Amino acid sequence: MQFTAQQIASLLNGTVEGDPSVAVSALAKIEEAGSGALSFLANPKYEQYLYTTDASIVIINNSLTLTQPVTATLIRVEDAYSAFSILLDAYSTLKLNKSGVEQPSFIHPTATIGQDVYIGAFAYIGPDVKVGDNSKIYPGTYVGDNVTVGNNVTLFAGVKVYFDCVLGDNVIIHSGAIIGSDGFGFAPTGDGTFKKIAQIGNVVLEDDVEVGSNTTIDRATMGSTIIRKGVKLDNLVQIAHNVEIGNNTVIAAQTGISGSTKIGEQVILGGQVGVVGHISVAKGTQVQAQSGISRTITDENKKWAGSPAFAYSSNMRSQVVVQRLPELEKRIQELEKIIAELRKVN
Amino acid sequence: MQFTAQQIASLLNGTVEGDPSVAVSALAKIEEAGSGALSFLANPKYEQYLYTTDASIVIINNSLTLTQPVTATLIRVEDAYSAFSILLDAYSTLKLNKSGVEQPSFIHPTATIGQDVYIGAFAYIGPDVKVGDNSKIYPGTYVGDNVTVGNNVTLFAGVKVYFDCVLGDNVIIHSGAIIGSDGFGFAPTGDGTFKKIAQIGNVVLEDDVEVGSNTTIDRATMGSTIIRKGVKLDNLVQIAHNVEIGNNTVIAAQTGISGSTKIGEQVILGGQVGVVGHISVAKGTQVQAQSGISRTITDENKKWAGSPAFAYSSNMRSQVVVQRLPELEKRIQELEKIIAELRKVN
Amino acid sequence: MQFTAQQIASLLNGTVEGDPSVAVSALAKIEEAGSGALSFLANPKYEQYLYTTDASIVIINNSLTLTQPVTATLIRVEDAYSAFSILLDAYSTLKLNKSGVEQPSFIHPTATIGQDVYIGAFAYIGPDVKVGDNSKIYPGTYVGDNVTVGNNVTLFAGVKVYFDCVLGDNVIIHSGAIIGSDGFGFAPTGDGTFKKIAQIGNVVLEDDVEVGSNTTIDRATMGSTIIRKGVKLDNLVQIAHNVEIGNNTVIAAQTGISGSTKIGEQVILGGQVGVVGHISVAKGTQVQAQSGISRTITDENKKWAGSPAFAYSSNMRSQVVVQRLPELEKRIQELEKIIAELRKVN
Repeated sequence: MQFTAQQIASLLNGTVEGDPSVAVSALAKIEEAGSGALSFLANPKYEQYLYTTDASIVIINNSLTLTQPVTATLIRVEDAYSAFSILLDAYSTLKLNKSGVEQPSFIHPTATIGQDVYIGAFAYIGPDVKVGDNSKIYPGTYVGDNVTVGNNVTLFAGVKVYFDCVLGDNVIIHSGAIIGSDGFGFAPTGDGTFKKIAQIGNVVLEDDVEVGSNTTIDRATMGSTIIRKGVKLDNLVQIAHNVEIGNNTVIAAQTGISGSTKIGEQVILGGQVGVVGHISVAKGTQVQAQSGISRTITDENKKWAGSPAFAYSSNMRSQVVVQRLPELEKRIQELEKIIAELRKVN
Repeated sequence: MQFTAQQIASLLNGTVEGDPSVAVSALAKIEEAGSGALSFLANPKYEQYLYTTDASIVIINNSLTLTQPVTATLIRVEDAYSAFSILLDAYSTLKLNKSGVEQPSFIHPTATIGQDVYIGAFAYIGPDVKVGDNSKIYPGTYVGDNVTVGNNVTLFAGVKVYFDCVLGDNVIIHSGAIIGSDGFGFAPTGDGTFKKIAQIGNVVLEDDVEVGSNTTIDRATMGSTIIRKGVKLDNLVQIAHNVEIGNNTVIAAQTGISGSTKIGEQVILGGQVGVVGHISVAKGTQVQAQSGISRTITDENKKWAGSPAFAYSSNMRSQVVVQRLPELEKRIQELEKIIAELRKVN
Repeated sequence: MQFTAQQIASLLNGTVEGDPSVAVSALAKIEEAGSGALSFLANPKYEQYLYTTDASIVIINNSLTLTQPVTATLIRVEDAYSAFSILLDAYSTLKLNKSGVEQPSFIHPTATIGQDVYIGAFAYIGPDVKVGDNSKIYPGTYVGDNVTVGNNVTLFAGVKVYFDCVLGDNVIIHSGAIIGSDGFGFAPTGDGTFKKIAQIGNVVLEDDVEVGSNTTIDRATMGSTIIRKGVKLDNLVQIAHNVEIGNNTVIAAQTGISGSTKIGEQVILGGQVGVVGHISVAKGTQVQAQSGISRTITDENKKWAGSPAFAYSSNMRSQVVVQRLPELEKRIQELEKIIAELRKVN
């Protein structure tokens, strides 16, 4: 797909400076853009690139005054960053513009499918499933019995959703993520073996949740594991049974939340963080990557680090000393020697 | 599906107190149960909820004496907890009650399929595969050449089992788990590149093993990676080539075991633990979450923590001091100052 | 498949000592080999096993002088280790010798498929995809729109490759790995919610890259996430958007690299390592398992450990002291007491 400077300027209500017939087929950062690419300049710090870029078209702010000649065709707009974002979204929508039902796919006769839905080949829509309008279910995805899928949902290739789970509107789940597998619940029997505790609850993903690839979210033993509105989970995250995660919380890759823990709203957890079970983490908490949260956090909006975690700034100071521990020990030995001598003297 | 108090009481050999025709369609904890749900009260600590719950039916012990009026219909049994467990299992069995062969699926003509097996759509059963009786192979699962699957095995949607692997009876594998991918074996060639070492062994999962979603278990270079009877692995666990894990060991999410390591029986590893390769870990060992086991553990039934790990109780004490390291350093500085003065005096 | 000692000796240009008609159907380590297996002895340390093994055939060096009687048939070659490697590779090639197109599979009419390609059942080859010669695409694999797959590539069962990604020659990707899912990019909106930033770049895997099972590699926001020639990634590794990994770097299981970070050539990262975003790591760097790299590393060929990481040998010394911190604190208390007394005396 190619678009001319004139077409793009019309879309963005911008003004062309240079050849309006120049065409582009790609979007790129100004420092990386080649011929045939469209780029943008919003941050004055990067202005130098405007005069050296190979981009065919660059979107700039109306307010920018050129200080050198430019070879690219320019499109002037009120806000270059926002204009470029609009193009990014449009490009992405175009790329993900799938529709219709590919064959072979499996749609159980008791399933209800909304309007303008895409169902890829080898997708499986089980009994009593409801799929809302404008949703996209990519190839090889499994939607188990009685699952509810909202409107404008995207399940990328190979997502697996177990029975009875509920996905709100605008949910995006990336490939390989597993929603609703059994919680890790086993009762010791006394002879060393373990008896499985049936896991009959479900998982609820509220509206606007995004789940990264190969992330796993276990169903509740009873009741629901709940991921609230607007939560963003990165790849390879583990959410155990009966966990609840508050609105707009963001969790980076490879972090794990143990069973029955409640994470508040607006929390930010770095990558590879671990949180123990049966605790709660206050609203606005921020946790550094690789930390371990082992106790309930009741103070809101605090930063934590370490495994086990303590206050972020204290942790920074302790870490500095950890690196000098052998030296510290020598200083203690030195003191002990001196004092032994002083005592002899006395 | 709805069941009346009378039907449930008959199943459990219990006695109804209240309306025997009241019907329920869900199971819930007593503090969360709404109308139409059945709950139970076993722990006297929660007796208060019995008088306020919205549950339609509550199972209680014969021995319980009511101290206030109750609106729910009661079913009295000898042991309320066990009775409820029976219902949980029955509910779960009902939910997972799949049978028959869905189309399209791929079953190689040389494969042998037992009695009463479920094979979901888009499942792949390769050449020379043997599947035992009463096993369930969910949609989109891949069972590679010459794999043996025991009786009463459940492979949830999208499990992948590479060639030659062996799964015992009653094995449960959750969605996205990978059994038998190549071990991570490469020989340096001298010019900076690596040559792949062929991985021709297999993976053996003995009876009663459960594997969590998106867990990966690599095949042995030669011989077998072995997961012994009754082992339970949580989600996103990594088991490298030639590892052996002893009977009834339990491993929490996101833990990784490096190549050729032997984990004993009845071991409990917390989440995000790492174990280096070519060591052994004694029977009954317990390791705290996020710890790193870097050496063979020969003492049985000990607890460990830290990265690298040392004795759990020592680690707890050290962690407390880590948090006060900056203060400790100041005390040393103070001592140095005082001693410098004392020396001047002397 | 069975092969006689004579057949194997011919293949390896070796000499048979013993019964040339003895047949084997498996390869095994000399200490584990049973009847019907072929083994080898290269390291003199293991010579004892030669006299006790149940292996039917053992490959040994021409130079070896026997000191006791041997029951196995021997094949003498110049270099027993190399000869055995050849057999391992041959066995592995035989096991993975798949060809043809199984049905049902989905190949879009605009896709281009090379010579001698295997496409398993339920594999999905999207619009405009190019697949090179001799490549193997196992069952249930998804190759999205406009993906380029080189020659001699193996995509094991259930691999998912999103649109526009590029896989070089000889690439091997294990089951469940996800290539090209969206980078984790969200812009705060000011009202607590986050707006998704469209991720329109791709992932490029250069020649000879191997990717472990359930590993995730996110597409770039713009441009490419690049995994250079010869890189080996273990299972459950996370590679974020716009990361670049240099030639022949090796990354162990469960390690995560955050966005826009550049890892140099010949780097070795242990398991469960975390690397923060927007930094670079110098060529030849080695990082211990469970470490956290929080700053750019410019010195080449250095070893690092700890979270946050510092020089490996310093870290080892600090870790030793960490274990004695409670004792250190007591020694400080003791010094404080003595000094208080000394001051009284003075």
